[in-house]
Amino acid sequence: MPTVIHNRFAVSFDYPVHFTDNAFDPASDLLCGVFDRLGEKRVHRVAAFVDAGLAEARPGLEASIRAYAHAHEDAFELTMEPLRIPGGCKAKNDVAIIQNIVFALGNLHMDRQSFVLAIGGGSMLDATGLAASLIHRGLRLVRMPSTVLAQCDAGIGVKNGIDHHGQKNFMGTFAPPFAVVNDVSLLTSLPPRERVGGLAEAVKVAVIRDGAFFARLETDAPALAAGEPAPLRRAIEDAAAIHLRQICTGGDPFEFGSARPLDFGHWAGHRLEILSGHAIAHGQGVAVGMALDTVYAKRAGLLPEADAARVLALIGALGLPRFLPELEMRRPDGELEVVRGIGDFREHLGGRLCITLPTAIGRTVEVHSMDEALIEAAIGELRTLNHKT
Amino acid sequence: MPTVIHNRFAVSFDYPVHFTDNAFDPASDLLCGVFDRLGEKRVHRVAAFVDAGLAEARPGLEASIRAYAHAHEDAFELTMEPLRIPGGCKAKNDVAIIQNIVFALGNLHMDRQSFVLAIGGGSMLDATGLAASLIHRGLRLVRMPSTVLAQCDAGIGVKNGIDHHGQKNFMGTFAPPFAVVNDVSLLTSLPPRERVGGLAEAVKVAVIRDGAFFARLETDAPALAAGEPAPLRRAIEDAAAIHLRQICTGGDPFEFGSARPLDFGHWAGHRLEILSGHAIAHGQGVAVGMALDTVYAKRAGLLPEADAARVLALIGALGLPRFLPELEMRRPDGELEVVRGIGDFREHLGGRLCITLPTAIGRTVEVHSMDEALIEAAIGELRTLNHKT
Repeated sequence: MPTVIHNRFAVSFDYPVHFTDNAFDPASDLLCGVFDRLGEKRVHRVAAFVDAGLAEARPGLEASIRAYAHAHEDAFELTMEPLRIPGGCKAKNDVAIIQNIVFALGNLHMDRQSFVLAIGGGSMLDATGLAASLIHRGLRLVRMPSTVLAQCDAGIGVKNGIDHHGQKNFMGTFAPPFAVVNDVSLLTSLPPRERVGGLAEAVKVAVIRDGAFFARLETDAPALAAGEPAPLRRAIEDAAAIHLRQICTGGDPFEFGSARPLDFGHWAGHRLEILSGHAIAHGQGVAVGMALDTVYAKRAGLLPEADAARVLALIGALGLPRFLPELEMRRPDGELEVVRGIGDFREHLGGRLCITLPTAIGRTVEVHSMDEALIEAAIGELRTLNHKT
Repeated sequence: MPTVIHNRFAVSFDYPVHFTDNAFDPASDLLCGVFDRLGEKRVHRVAAFVDAGLAEARPGLEASIRAYAHAHEDAFELTMEPLRIPGGCKAKNDVAIIQNIVFALGNLHMDRQSFVLAIGGGSMLDATGLAASLIHRGLRLVRMPSTVLAQCDAGIGVKNGIDHHGQKNFMGTFAPPFAVVNDVSLLTSLPPRERVGGLAEAVKVAVIRDGAFFARLETDAPALAAGEPAPLRRAIEDAAAIHLRQICTGGDPFEFGSARPLDFGHWAGHRLEILSGHAIAHGQGVAVGMALDTVYAKRAGLLPEADAARVLALIGALGLPRFLPELEMRRPDGELEVVRGIGDFREHLGGRLCITLPTAIGRTVEVHSMDEALIEAAIGELRTLNHKT
C-alpha cells in the first residue's frame, strides 16, 4: 500500500540593504558592522571581487579596499588581493568566469560562514553571486552594486544568473545575499548613458506600483538627467524600497508561480538586448519595452491616453529611448523578431504567459496573451514619436 | 546619512515523499498524481534521467518508463528518450555530466514548470538535481531513489552537490524536490553490499534520534542482512520519517548555522571515502565513522559502555564494517590521515566545529573539538574488535 509523508517547512531570510556614501572611508565602520551583523565577534574572512570596468574607471578603488581592511584588521581580513572580474555582458556570457571564481574561492578554503564581497554592476554581481551560491551550497555574499540599475534592482534582490544556451538567465539560483551596501559614491564614475539607463528600473516600479513616486520622478527628471547626486540617491532609495517590498509581501519570492509582477517592459526589453547582440544595455532595452507595453495597453483600451502620455514623456525626459530600430527586425517569414520575446519570457517563467500591463500610473493588470497586430501598431506609433522628437 | 531597509521574508516548501511499489506499472496512477499534484490539469512535460548502473542492472526499466508514459499520455509526455547518467562516484566527480544534463534540458526548452524525473542512486540524483536546480533557477524535480541509502537519506532531503576541488559536495545547492517516490521494487536489483550499506543511514538516525527504532533494527537485523523486502521497506520508512522530521522541525533546513545534527559518523566516513579513492562506499564509510565516534564517545565518558556495545553489535549484525585499514593511514609527519576529516567537515559547514556524539541510544551531545589521542585509542580498539570477529 502506498503511504506518504508530507515534508512542509519554511526557510526564513533576512538581509539589510544599506544606503550610504564612501563605505571604504577608513573612518566608516558600516562594512565591519555588516560582516559581524550576527554578532559573531570573530575576524571574518573576506574575498573581494571587483568589476573590471569599475576598477578601470576608479583606479584607486582596490587600494582603498586594502586600506579599509588594514584599518579594520580586528574585524575582517582579506583572504586574497581583490580580484577583477569582467563586467557587463561578458560576465553573464562566459561559464569560464564562474569556474575561475569557484577555483579562487576553493583555493582559499572559504567556508559557509566566509564572505564574498562583490563590487560591481548587475552582470558581475550575478556571475559572482552564482559562483558564491554554489560553493558549499552558499557562501555569505555581500553585494556593493556600482550602477544605478544594480542599486535599484539587480543588486538588491534574491536572484542571480548567467545567460547560456541563447537564453537570458538560463542558469542561476535564488540566493538571498547576506547584506547589500548601496554606496552612492560608487556611481560618480558612471558614464551618463549607464546612469540614465538604470533609471529605467525606477520608472518601472513607479509606473506599476507608486503614483506618488512617479510624480517625484517627473519633478526631478531634469536633475536626474543631469546626474545630480541628491535626487539620484532619493530615486534609488524609493525604487529599491518598492522592489524589496514586492519580495517581502508579494507572496512568491522564489517565483514558483508564473507571475512576474515586476517585469513590466521586460519581455521586449530582454529580446531587444539579444537582437542587438547586447549592444543595447538592459536599461535602454527595458525603457523601449515599457514604451511598447504602454502604447500597447493604451491601444488595447487598458490605459487612459493621458497616463500613457505621461509614461512616454517621463522616459523621454530622463534621456531614455522609446524606440530602437531592433523593434522592426523581421524574420524571413515576416514575423517581428521582437515577438519571440513573448515565448522566451513564458518559457523562462514556465506555465501560463503572464505579462504585466499598466492600467493607470501605479496600477496594473495581468494579461495572458498579446495581439501581434496591436504590437505592430504600437511599434509604428513609437517610430513616429521617435521621428517627431 | 546611512539608512537601511531590512528585507525579511520566508519561503515555504512542501513536498510529498511517497512509499510505493512498482510505480511504473501502467495500472498505477501515483506518478501521474505526483506530476499534477498542484491540480494544473495539463499534459506535463517530463524529461527522464536514469542511473546507468540501474539501467544495466534492470534492462527493462527504460521500456517500462516509456510504456507507463504511453499509458498515461493524457497526464504527461516524455520530452525525450530516457537519458542515462553515470551513477556512483562518477556522477559526483565530473562537471561535464552536469553540463550534459544542462544542454539536454536546454535543447528541450524546458520551463520552470517542466519536470525532471531522476531515477537512480544518491550520487546520480545529486548531479541531476544540481543541474535541474540551475536551469531557469530550478525546474521541478521528482526523485525516484533506487538505493536503500538514497531512499533513507540522500534522495529525500533538500540538498544536492558534486565533489570538486578535492572536497566532498564542494559545489551544490539547497533545492527541495517537487516530490519523491520511494519505490521498493527498485531495490530488488541491488547488490547486497550496496543494500546493506544504505542501512548505515538508518542506524545513524536510530542512534541519534529514536531508541525504539534502534530496537526494531536490532530485532530485524538478521532479516535485513538477508535482504528480506518487508523489514527493509519498514526500516526505510522509519529512517526517512526521522530524516524528514529533522528538516521540518530542526529549525535550520538550509543550514545557515554550524550544527549538522544528522551527520553522526560523517566526518570520518567522508574522509575514508576520499582516502580510499572512493573504493569505500558512503554507507560503509559512515558505518566505520559511527563505530569510531561510538567508541570515542564511550572512551570520552559520554556514552555508557552497554550502549556503545549495542551500536557496535548492530553495525556488525547488519553486515556493515566497523574497521577499515584506511583508518590507520598516516601522513609523512605521523598524523593520522583520517583526522584531516575534522577540518574538512568544519570547513564545509563553516564557523565553529560541531560534531554530534551519542550519549545514549537515541540521544546526543554536540562537541566542538576532538582529542587526537582518544581517536587513536578508539581506532586501536576497533582494530582489535575487527581481528576478534
